[in-house]
Amino acid sequence: MKIHGTPWGGNPRRVAIFLAEKGMDIPFVDVDLMGGEHRGEAFRALNPWELVPVLELDDGTCISETIAICRYIEELHPEPALFGRDPLERALVEMWQRRIELVLYAAVREVVRHSVPAIRVLEPVQLPEWAEVNRGRAARAIERLDGQLAASEFVAGSRYSVADITALFALEGSARAGIEIPGSCKHVERWLAQVRARPSSTSTLPPARG
Amino acid sequence: MKIHGTPWGGNPRRVAIFLAEKGMDIPFVDVDLMGGEHRGEAFRALNPWELVPVLELDDGTCISETIAICRYIEELHPEPALFGRDPLERALVEMWQRRIELVLYAAVREVVRHSVPAIRVLEPVQLPEWAEVNRGRAARAIERLDGQLAASEFVAGSRYSVADITALFALEGSARAGIEIPGSCKHVERWLAQVRARPSSTSTLPPARG
Repeated sequence: MKIHGTPWGGNPRRVAIFLAEKGMDIPFVDVDLMGGEHRGEAFRALNPWELVPVLELDDGTCISETIAICRYIEELHPEPALFGRDPLERALVEMWQRRIELVLYAAVREVVRHSVPAIRVLEPVQLPEWAEVNRGRAARAIERLDGQLAASEFVAGSRYSVADITALFALEGSARAGIEIPGSCKHVERWLAQVRARPSSTSTLPPARG
Repeated sequence: MKIHGTPWGGNPRRVAIFLAEKGMDIPFVDVDLMGGEHRGEAFRALNPWELVPVLELDDGTCISETIAICRYIEELHPEPALFGRDPLERALVEMWQRRIELVLYAAVREVVRHSVPAIRVLEPVQLPEWAEVNRGRAARAIERLDGQLAASEFVAGSRYSVADITALFALEGSARAGIEIPGSCKHVERWLAQVRARPSSTSTLPPARG
């Protein structure tokens, strides 16, 4: 098996953290998004939807979409369970994964894509007004997450899960986009310090630039 | 159990179709989105993220997010399997569900929210330029879906799955937003006629307006 995608370049990072939590090692193959490699013929043969990451199995079967890849890995290596251990826990992990991905991360992503000049290569029509709307939405989502983390050690409850990986990834992105964590969100700060210090996060950071 | 959300008003429709495919009946409780009921105190006690649908269990536990609700129902009633039957099939269903939801449906949703005047109550800053960008993205996603349906009876392969429900829902939305299916997409037309004719779709349509 191998994974197409640079492990600190966007969504592949989520898979890299997931693998580290599982204690697994699957090689990553770099894909140069800024150079448009994902739009080339070779990559489109792996994923015609032109998105990283892609998990290529030994028989050539390709699974794309971050969470689909993580679910497949969870089936191969069930422990530690990162999608929940029983029907209700699995539903609540899915609920939180989606809230974070579809509300918080989606807003952060729009801020990045519509306010960072270098991203124009991926988002040709950049709309500053749309970035502003999403800056507000991201802050509101962080406040909602804070409400959950006031009562809960991790995003989806008392155990670390894939929802924490998505939330860490979203907040790493929001920091780069200059979205501050609202000062009232002490629980998010507590949680962020905690998940950032896990080996799955520290061991998968990009190499320092020289 | 009950489901908060009007069964033909947005995402709750996906749960209604899912239940019909399972042969299950769970009562729906209307939520008046245009009147802002989802922002009121009573609804926020069910889901502080202010989104429908919400599945309320008999002990008061609330599960929100369409796909989290559908997964929970699948665990209670595994047959017919709508999330796949083995690890690889489950990964591919998840891949297709996400491609359709995060690329096709996400684009359709932005067109609707930024071009339909009545939606301003939900999307106060409407940006026509953003609607146009997403109109193009939706058309391109439909073409990609057509490529899959050229080789496959259903969206995720030879069996009907939750990915077909998401795709039907996305294309119902695109029709309302005036996004035409590109003329070259004969396979999407074939598939659409087929899934629209299923009892799960016809039996869950809104009542005719008088």
